[in-house]
Amino acid sequence: MVINAMEQIMKDLLDEYKGRLQLNCTCSTCLDDILALSLNKTTPRYVTNIEKAMYIKAEFIDKQEMTSLLVKLAECAKIVSDHPMCDNYQ
Amino acid sequence: MVINAMEQIMKDLLDEYKGRLQLNCTCSTCLDDILALSLNKTTPRYVTNIEKAMYIKAEFIDKQEMTSLLVKLAECAKIVSDHPMCDNYQ
Repeated sequence: MVINAMEQIMKDLLDEYKGRLQLNCTCSTCLDDILALSLNKTTPRYVTNIEKAMYIKAEFIDKQEMTSLLVKLAECAKIVSDHPMCDNYQ
Repeated sequence: MVINAMEQIMKDLLDEYKGRLQLNCTCSTCLDDILALSLNKTTPRYVTNIEKAMYIKAEFIDKQEMTSLLVKLAECAKIVSDHPMCDNYQ
């Protein structure tokens, strides 16, 4: 089993900030699109079990690291908001 | 749901070539370590459903793309084989 620890970190960050990202649509399709796009722009941190993912998460307690993730998330939120691909906008 | 399409591609490649990578140990811990290390060196390709992962897989039918993945896999296999962290070697 391998897990990219960044998946949960980015998901938690999106959950926390989705109310402040000025999203045109907050359906699950758009949120998944934002998440996938953000993860494609983020260096992966694969670990072989869930306990090891905690060590990666601990690194991102550092404010500067977390801010750089949030910047990526905001950029991707803008891209998806400008071009939503979900059923609500087709 | 988001999936890194590279996970399955790299896993399939490891399954196919593990007999030819001169591994000192082929236990599941060592194979996972090789997989995690290779994925950390590979640009992620996140998609939002399993059908879309097929399109990414199709790109890697291209021989040059697949060879560059295999080179990464072989490098990581050497690192793990030189320093196995599994119970068999502790």
